[in-house]
Amino acid sequence: MANVHDSAHALEKDIRNSDEFQELEAIFSKVMNDATSKEMFDQFRNTQLELQEKQMQGIDISEEEVENAREVVEAVQKNEDISQLMEAEQRLNVVINDISRIITKPLEELYGDSTEE
Amino acid sequence: MANVHDSAHALEKDIRNSDEFQELEAIFSKVMNDATSKEMFDQFRNTQLELQEKQMQGIDISEEEVENAREVVEAVQKNEDISQLMEAEQRLNVVINDISRIITKPLEELYGDSTEE
Repeated sequence: MANVHDSAHALEKDIRNSDEFQELEAIFSKVMNDATSKEMFDQFRNTQLELQEKQMQGIDISEEEVENAREVVEAVQKNEDISQLMEAEQRLNVVINDISRIITKPLEELYGDSTEE
Repeated sequence: MANVHDSAHALEKDIRNSDEFQELEAIFSKVMNDATSKEMFDQFRNTQLELQEKQMQGIDISEEEVENAREVVEAVQKNEDISQLMEAEQRLNVVINDISRIITKPLEELYGDSTEE
């Protein structure tokens, strides 16, 4: 267990020092320090969270809400900093997904092999 | 990116060598090599997956299905090897959750700090 924790902390440090995280941190702080961009980004995130919650709870999403979300996305895409932020998020996501695929391999192999019998 | 991958692979190796994973592997193979236990365990997993899928799709679960699931769980709990397997799964889950908490910290700090402003 000690090894696992040490390795996890080493990985955390490497994630923190990775180009992908550093770039995300820089553009995120740029967006947060610009009042207009921050407001737009917060609105974008809130809209997404609301729609996700409704979807998870099986609540119908009205045409008006879809239209509203579309407008928020359009506005956000025109903002150069937020566009960059979303791209940086996607690049870090690729890294996180890679990591997740690597470290869940032992379990996948264990359960995958047995059910194929 | 190179560092992150190396660290992830090191972590994967440590998970594989951990007591928690080794114990899970041993008891899992014991269950899989006993025809009765294997059938019972497969049935248990299939029942759980079916119910989970229905829940996610928002499909109502009938009283009969709940009762059936309860019976499968009861049968499984009486099987010493499967009980041990489920306990081993839980112990590994604790490890995996710890890891997940550690490596998602950079992102949590970044997004957590900003929204608290």
